[in-house]
Amino acid sequence: MASRPTPADKFSFGLWTVGWQGRDPFGHATRPALDPVESVHRLAELGAYGVTFHDDDLVPFGADAATRDGQIARFRKALDETGLAVPMVTTDLFQQPVFKDGGFTSNDRDVRRYALRKVLRNIDLAAELGAQTFVMWGGREGGEYDVAKDVQAALERYREAVDLLCQYVVDRGYDLRFALEPKPNEPRGDILLPTVGHALAFISTLAHPDRVGVNPEVGHEQMAGLNFVHGIAQALWQGKLFHIDLNGQRGIKYDQDLVFGHGDLLNAFALVDLLEHGAPGGGPAYQGPRHFDYKPSRTEDMDGVWVSAAANMRTYLLLKERAAAFRADPEVAEALAASKVGELGVPTLGDGEGYAELLADTSAYEEFDVETTGARGFGFIRLNQLAVEHVLGAR
Amino acid sequence: MASRPTPADKFSFGLWTVGWQGRDPFGHATRPALDPVESVHRLAELGAYGVTFHDDDLVPFGADAATRDGQIARFRKALDETGLAVPMVTTDLFQQPVFKDGGFTSNDRDVRRYALRKVLRNIDLAAELGAQTFVMWGGREGGEYDVAKDVQAALERYREAVDLLCQYVVDRGYDLRFALEPKPNEPRGDILLPTVGHALAFISTLAHPDRVGVNPEVGHEQMAGLNFVHGIAQALWQGKLFHIDLNGQRGIKYDQDLVFGHGDLLNAFALVDLLEHGAPGGGPAYQGPRHFDYKPSRTEDMDGVWVSAAANMRTYLLLKERAAAFRADPEVAEALAASKVGELGVPTLGDGEGYAELLADTSAYEEFDVETTGARGFGFIRLNQLAVEHVLGAR
Amino acid sequence: MASRPTPADKFSFGLWTVGWQGRDPFGHATRPALDPVESVHRLAELGAYGVTFHDDDLVPFGADAATRDGQIARFRKALDETGLAVPMVTTDLFQQPVFKDGGFTSNDRDVRRYALRKVLRNIDLAAELGAQTFVMWGGREGGEYDVAKDVQAALERYREAVDLLCQYVVDRGYDLRFALEPKPNEPRGDILLPTVGHALAFISTLAHPDRVGVNPEVGHEQMAGLNFVHGIAQALWQGKLFHIDLNGQRGIKYDQDLVFGHGDLLNAFALVDLLEHGAPGGGPAYQGPRHFDYKPSRTEDMDGVWVSAAANMRTYLLLKERAAAFRADPEVAEALAASKVGELGVPTLGDGEGYAELLADTSAYEEFDVETTGARGFGFIRLNQLAVEHVLGAR
Amino acid sequence: MASRPTPADKFSFGLWTVGWQGRDPFGHATRPALDPVESVHRLAELGAYGVTFHDDDLVPFGADAATRDGQIARFRKALDETGLAVPMVTTDLFQQPVFKDGGFTSNDRDVRRYALRKVLRNIDLAAELGAQTFVMWGGREGGEYDVAKDVQAALERYREAVDLLCQYVVDRGYDLRFALEPKPNEPRGDILLPTVGHALAFISTLAHPDRVGVNPEVGHEQMAGLNFVHGIAQALWQGKLFHIDLNGQRGIKYDQDLVFGHGDLLNAFALVDLLEHGAPGGGPAYQGPRHFDYKPSRTEDMDGVWVSAAANMRTYLLLKERAAAFRADPEVAEALAASKVGELGVPTLGDGEGYAELLADTSAYEEFDVETTGARGFGFIRLNQLAVEHVLGAR
Repeated sequence: MASRPTPADKFSFGLWTVGWQGRDPFGHATRPALDPVESVHRLAELGAYGVTFHDDDLVPFGADAATRDGQIARFRKALDETGLAVPMVTTDLFQQPVFKDGGFTSNDRDVRRYALRKVLRNIDLAAELGAQTFVMWGGREGGEYDVAKDVQAALERYREAVDLLCQYVVDRGYDLRFALEPKPNEPRGDILLPTVGHALAFISTLAHPDRVGVNPEVGHEQMAGLNFVHGIAQALWQGKLFHIDLNGQRGIKYDQDLVFGHGDLLNAFALVDLLEHGAPGGGPAYQGPRHFDYKPSRTEDMDGVWVSAAANMRTYLLLKERAAAFRADPEVAEALAASKVGELGVPTLGDGEGYAELLADTSAYEEFDVETTGARGFGFIRLNQLAVEHVLGAR
Repeated sequence: MASRPTPADKFSFGLWTVGWQGRDPFGHATRPALDPVESVHRLAELGAYGVTFHDDDLVPFGADAATRDGQIARFRKALDETGLAVPMVTTDLFQQPVFKDGGFTSNDRDVRRYALRKVLRNIDLAAELGAQTFVMWGGREGGEYDVAKDVQAALERYREAVDLLCQYVVDRGYDLRFALEPKPNEPRGDILLPTVGHALAFISTLAHPDRVGVNPEVGHEQMAGLNFVHGIAQALWQGKLFHIDLNGQRGIKYDQDLVFGHGDLLNAFALVDLLEHGAPGGGPAYQGPRHFDYKPSRTEDMDGVWVSAAANMRTYLLLKERAAAFRADPEVAEALAASKVGELGVPTLGDGEGYAELLADTSAYEEFDVETTGARGFGFIRLNQLAVEHVLGAR
Repeated sequence: MASRPTPADKFSFGLWTVGWQGRDPFGHATRPALDPVESVHRLAELGAYGVTFHDDDLVPFGADAATRDGQIARFRKALDETGLAVPMVTTDLFQQPVFKDGGFTSNDRDVRRYALRKVLRNIDLAAELGAQTFVMWGGREGGEYDVAKDVQAALERYREAVDLLCQYVVDRGYDLRFALEPKPNEPRGDILLPTVGHALAFISTLAHPDRVGVNPEVGHEQMAGLNFVHGIAQALWQGKLFHIDLNGQRGIKYDQDLVFGHGDLLNAFALVDLLEHGAPGGGPAYQGPRHFDYKPSRTEDMDGVWVSAAANMRTYLLLKERAAAFRADPEVAEALAASKVGELGVPTLGDGEGYAELLADTSAYEEFDVETTGARGFGFIRLNQLAVEHVLGAR
Repeated sequence: MASRPTPADKFSFGLWTVGWQGRDPFGHATRPALDPVESVHRLAELGAYGVTFHDDDLVPFGADAATRDGQIARFRKALDETGLAVPMVTTDLFQQPVFKDGGFTSNDRDVRRYALRKVLRNIDLAAELGAQTFVMWGGREGGEYDVAKDVQAALERYREAVDLLCQYVVDRGYDLRFALEPKPNEPRGDILLPTVGHALAFISTLAHPDRVGVNPEVGHEQMAGLNFVHGIAQALWQGKLFHIDLNGQRGIKYDQDLVFGHGDLLNAFALVDLLEHGAPGGGPAYQGPRHFDYKPSRTEDMDGVWVSAAANMRTYLLLKERAAAFRADPEVAEALAASKVGELGVPTLGDGEGYAELLADTSAYEEFDVETTGARGFGFIRLNQLAVEHVLGAR
């Protein structure tokens, strides 16, 4: 049985998750507004470690300074009372009409300048609250019509924006890193930097690439039919997994933001295994917050909201247990060896070998027995069946 | 009316396209094998500029040296007779059983070594034939089961392989660049480097990043629901569009390899516009071959094969005409301005401006009229409708 | 060039289309509320023939009788002034929290009873306004969690509801038919009756199957990756195409509701061809309203709304012209014959032939030349290329 | 722990599943041909109950009468020796070039006649072997190009074919029912009768609708993003679940044919629960064979083939155990009640109530408290979390 979550598990939640009122494209809100202070207390009671937010989650958009200060003070007090951390902060550049064509890449230059200012202001708050990560989801950066957006110019503006923000953080001496959150579409027809890959590629062009990583979300990659674990592995391999958004998605459709594990359960198992134990070949495990970015379904009342928050953590812990058992199972070890999973960690070239030596090695080509090797089975299904049985708690 | 294709249009075809015999997962071949020499002659007659191939398209896998030399000699003769170029060559690391778990990233180290040797040999041939681009589609690099592949180790081996091949080409003084071809899945459940973004990100980690770019294929990106034009724009923006595969795909499903334009026609229009004219904001146009990587449907006989080859070029030229008319239309120019498409090319910061100056500019934030700006329309639908009408030849 | 739309073209629009304020899952409204009376006048000016609505589009949910009567009276007056028809009416069973688990199939019986009452009331209004079709989109009938909905019981309740409504309409003598509108998902994770096929199958179980048909929407079928033209053809073949929703969608993702033709243009061409001319083999054309169910993008202001409304009609008329030219082109006729498209209209059995005669016909099997027939090409690509060129206005 | 499979579990396999040699669109066979007789023996040893086949799986296409008789005799002998049943037989109308545009709906009438003959012959064999179900998967019935197929004519021909086959079976007195197998695409761009819904709708138009049901396949519905359990529920509700194909699929992509449970594990759980226990509201359970239609991955050798065959059955049995525990769990019963899952089984109308009585019931509308009801939560997430925990074997 899974143990109860504790802050040591590093579970965090966005204010906008439990606070989602259930407004969707075809329906009005089904739940009342939730006071961020209440969220902090409830999440702490459930065993969470941290809470995160968009500026406008905490302080209503357009509020005056006094309101803002008051809200922040109340929030800080709740944090102090509960011990909850604020490991991550992010900025809302999508809800207001002014951002309808994006923030950093709006065709309207004035909007771009305004967006930068909104983010700069929020970075100060993030630093003040001790956040280590500043997430940027550019949900409105993109378009519906191929002829209405100069994508190369948009990427140039995107880079200009991120470079400026990095410079600001560096100059201020903030201990803050940025994490770009990719998504293929919704609310725009096509969003820029649609996948983990595109975001990583973009980062390689920046002035301060070391300051910027990614914040992949389970459902976002799955909305493009991509394997989330593969994306996370590439991000880890490039040293760029700065933060992660856990939730559930059932295939290629609108963004569902289900509870973690309520979508592709096998992929969730492999994900937890990777985050907790690192690559089978010995890569590093993930150390950051396990951040849930989900939405309690519109059918639920406030009780259902807190049940759903707990469900995220419980499923994670159950999968963690199963992953540990999987790693410890001698039959799994044997199957991994039979499938040569570890052999992929061995360099293809020998020590000191280059192409010249490889070309000279007739066993590698001229005398290589293509047929026999081609006929040898890898035993992948047996290995996967062992994983399925561990997920099912049947071993 | 579109003019007839000429070599100046730089159209090229893979031997495996017109030579596809119609074998699919549920059916046997419907067409006889096609002699590469005949393909060269027919493609030249149709107005193509170049022909490309996998090693095993030209010389049967496992053929002895004499057969190989004979085939290459016959092929060269046909090239000389027709003037067709070989702008690109690629290696088949997917058909033979030995590659069933991949080439560069097979769990089996012996297979990895063999794969490198197969590619090295083919690089020599590519250089000999004057190819400028060496494409690498890692169609078998990936897996079906999350626990059976250490993706980080796989990427490490992928990098090892590409670094070695680059070093070889550099040392030999070949005027050859590599282009990675992404694909999300099929024939593997999940393929490594599944999109243009992932490939660009991978390239940024290489020892010789300047030697390596991408070869995006229309249908491959669309199989992940991604906007192909967006992917091409990012590749161009990162200076990495080394080659391109044109074809048609009708949504997220198996790889269809239809004739170019027989899929998403509006996206094809925007693509041709971008390749021919560069970004609206003035980015460079694409100079390389317009390479068709399609499959004549299994329902067609050999006459249908050549009709389909011609159809690719004809549709491209028709779209090129429409794109030119779109760019020249004063109403389009006016609509582009109204939509502020060009304004995205203007830096968000003024000359010499940094965050300090931006923070000091109260017009950017404190006095910014969020409401009025938010209410202003972008006129994107009007602009897109103009594009649709140009595609329809109605303006 | 396409002629301007006139009422003879039978174009209609929902009040909720031009009236959509741009509220989406990640953003607030970007446009003010639109008075239905203004919509009627503007649509009439643009050449539309009809206007349609949900009860709550016309009269705010929960309004008192006086408000309701007043709104209806104002609306009727606008109809009289403009000559616009109300060919279709529908009921909103999705926006209010009470319908969060559906209307006819909510797990809560009280909600189901309330939903029936809401529809019954609206049917009276529909009849009063002379509508011929009553659409039912069960957007909330479904679920996110497999264990939380007894789908068989849900279908039973769905049938109970539709049977009751049919009986009511029959007994009242209303000249009104029902049209079910399928959709695979959004706003529910999975919606009941997800495709045209499922709806047609459901209809076959009803007490009054003749009273009920379908109202397929372009984007809804395409959200399941299905060919919209195929779905329409099956609905026509089963005599069930009672109404149609035209719009645009770019692949499998959230419901985009783009302008008609701004999605899959080739499929839109084939659709218009089918609706206007009937099946190539001579099936009946569609006689009902050409109803646009789209959303003017959130980036547009009110001018953009009316531009987008006009764009729907203009694209339809342009495609109609191209379809007529396609049908009239002798080369197309020749290609259709070569592809044996018409031969599919010829029964497989001869006059009076049954299986006995077929079994006795040795030419059909024993002496049938499988190889020669198998080698014969169908020429489909040539035919499709002709269609593409007609779409491009290049013939 | 799951018990070992026995014939009482009614597990069956197609000869083409374990016999698949690993030929895919990008690769040659990786395994040798498998003698059907060996398959029969191995499957029996593993605990299977039945074996199924296409005509061409058992007897090579075009074989002479002596070869055919010999093969059938050997096969019968193996059946006798092992006690394996042949509950289902099907015909291959897709592999041979002659069927490249379909069988029953090929544009070529001669092909249609040949296809009917091929099926008639195979029906005799099916009856002879005691099969109860004759599956028809029309994998080639469809097209890639909208203008090349008259879908209405195609459906007419499809009906003509099925009507003739039904008449034949009726007249011969065979105890044989037909089951149509839907699939959205692959190998054709769009296949006719793409989903369970379309097939059920088609069946309602037949001359002998009672003779024809469906054979849904997990992966086929999931290739259209549809919920397989919903489709099965509709088929059961319409009394049409004549047979079922179990396998695994990981989202919308090419047809993967993975081991059952190696795809969407939560949906597989709900499926087994439905098949074994019937609807929560008390619908009938499924009584037919649990038929696995999967492909052992191309990476496996013959040992892997038999391991994979066993894995299908083992996962099914484990899920069956978990489904039984889920049904028996009092907390689940309580959660089901709280979610009103059973209340959906209660008719919306009272005994003897019609619309008149409903209209007269002011508690249903006029006095209905919309707000309070709308605010009440359904507790679906709690219920689903209980299901997830049962799947994980954690309760």
